[in-house]
Amino acid sequence: MRIERINLYENRDDVFLTTYLLEDSPAMLGGKKRPAVLVCPGGAYAFISPTEAEPIAIRYASMGYHAFVLNYTVYNKGQFVNPMGELPKDPDSLYPGPMLDIGAAMLCLRDHADEWLLDAEQVILTGFSAGAHNSAMYCTKWDSDIFTKRFHRPTEDFKPAGAILGYGYYDWVDFRKMNVENPMARAMNESIDFGYFGTRHPSEEQFAEASPAYHVTKNTPPMFLWTTCEDHTLPSEQTMIMGAALAKAGVRYEVHTFERGDHGYALGDQATADSMEKVSEDAAQWVPLANRWLKRNFPLDLPEHPAHAFSFDDLV
Amino acid sequence: MRIERINLYENRDDVFLTTYLLEDSPAMLGGKKRPAVLVCPGGAYAFISPTEAEPIAIRYASMGYHAFVLNYTVYNKGQFVNPMGELPKDPDSLYPGPMLDIGAAMLCLRDHADEWLLDAEQVILTGFSAGAHNSAMYCTKWDSDIFTKRFHRPTEDFKPAGAILGYGYYDWVDFRKMNVENPMARAMNESIDFGYFGTRHPSEEQFAEASPAYHVTKNTPPMFLWTTCEDHTLPSEQTMIMGAALAKAGVRYEVHTFERGDHGYALGDQATADSMEKVSEDAAQWVPLANRWLKRNFPLDLPEHPAHAFSFDDLV
Repeated sequence: MRIERINLYENRDDVFLTTYLLEDSPAMLGGKKRPAVLVCPGGAYAFISPTEAEPIAIRYASMGYHAFVLNYTVYNKGQFVNPMGELPKDPDSLYPGPMLDIGAAMLCLRDHADEWLLDAEQVILTGFSAGAHNSAMYCTKWDSDIFTKRFHRPTEDFKPAGAILGYGYYDWVDFRKMNVENPMARAMNESIDFGYFGTRHPSEEQFAEASPAYHVTKNTPPMFLWTTCEDHTLPSEQTMIMGAALAKAGVRYEVHTFERGDHGYALGDQATADSMEKVSEDAAQWVPLANRWLKRNFPLDLPEHPAHAFSFDDLV
Repeated sequence: MRIERINLYENRDDVFLTTYLLEDSPAMLGGKKRPAVLVCPGGAYAFISPTEAEPIAIRYASMGYHAFVLNYTVYNKGQFVNPMGELPKDPDSLYPGPMLDIGAAMLCLRDHADEWLLDAEQVILTGFSAGAHNSAMYCTKWDSDIFTKRFHRPTEDFKPAGAILGYGYYDWVDFRKMNVENPMARAMNESIDFGYFGTRHPSEEQFAEASPAYHVTKNTPPMFLWTTCEDHTLPSEQTMIMGAALAKAGVRYEVHTFERGDHGYALGDQATADSMEKVSEDAAQWVPLANRWLKRNFPLDLPEHPAHAFSFDDLV
């Protein structure tokens, strides 16, 4: 496995890919290209959550997919700011900054496709929480001129093949109608909005523009969405709303809402937990379900039988 | 993840560990040590099988365990020799050479335990085919003076915590009673015996000495064994014989024989296949079963609740 950090912009070191490239062998794909999974961790657009980064990439690599973690732009370079105080401006974190980073990552994968034995037509985004939002934004906007204008590359170069999204938000209008009583929690939400929109109080038009559920078209790739019913940070109806939008647009999708579990389960397993509170056999089922979905939609290119069936006669 | 190659002997470069060390974070174990899995790939003591090396390590790493692949001594440094012709002598590959390599690996893990945040008391061996044999040999002999004499370290330093072994052989006496009609297959078996014992026709005493099923004691660690009923290379009764020996000695064990599937399934998944012939939803169940066994016997050290429960008051 080749692990390497690659900065996506010459003049910045806060936006980068970490590669988890699988070794090939004649006993496996024998030189054929593999699909890849691009991981967008969560962290409220304020930091990059470690439980939703490397452990996720390793889990997908173990399924036979090249994997990448994307450190996309987060507010104030990930330095915590007291949301009750003055919020410094950060032009990089404003929409569409974080979404453009996914475009830059897609180009990087495409440009290394031959070297990495990577099938650039089969790149699946996977995101959690804010990373799910960012991925869903990308999946509904990849064919807009935002990307062609920024990167001077044809639209087709940006096309994602699918997305696996956990406990995301997809309708920012509805999300902000939640009754948040705790003043600090309200200030936190406002600081997230400030980082992404440049104001503590974005307009409904701004929220709508950044609501993937409003922008699903037939060009939106197939999606696998999952969440937990007890998520109090990011209500599970967000996933239902997105599922409905995909269904209406005729986009193939799969949704799994697990009854138990609060926000931020990552793998739902001890591998991504700081305590038993983050372990749930229920929620952890998203992983084998997503693996089935990947194998069905983006299987590795394996023949029915080995190219060279073993024979003892080969040995002499 | 830190991937590094470490030679285990100063004067040889064919015996080495490849590390797959997990990154820690306050959002995960927060500085506590983790158990580790040491992978011994198969390959008939003639080569190191790539499907049973890195992909296995990555799969265990995705469960939250540090993982290592051990390239142990194989006959003629892995260079193929026509088994019908003259077989060059290889003093390194003779018993107990390959088993001693596991001892060297265990010491290497122990000596790096603090640096790697690795719990040296919880190192689980995992092997396939010849690698399962080698691991089982180690598990039944780790407390003999072969190791203390060779490495001048106390017996306790070599103690394995458990073993997960796939389609191995454990009774070489019984194994060699198989009726092998194909002359090339017979010559292959003889060349394996030559590499390990230095003769094409070892005595029953030699076979018995290298049959872990004969040497199980109460010091043998708990084992998880799996195989497939249709294995024609290495018959599944080998696993039954070992299971019986463990049961008799009162060693805790788990056995899973899957009805379908020939030899060498590795993960049983597309991640380790060269064709659909090596994919089996049945056989692939050993992986989640082994994960359950690991979590039950060697769980990560997680508290019931996070050490510092999140509070908005922490933010100001």
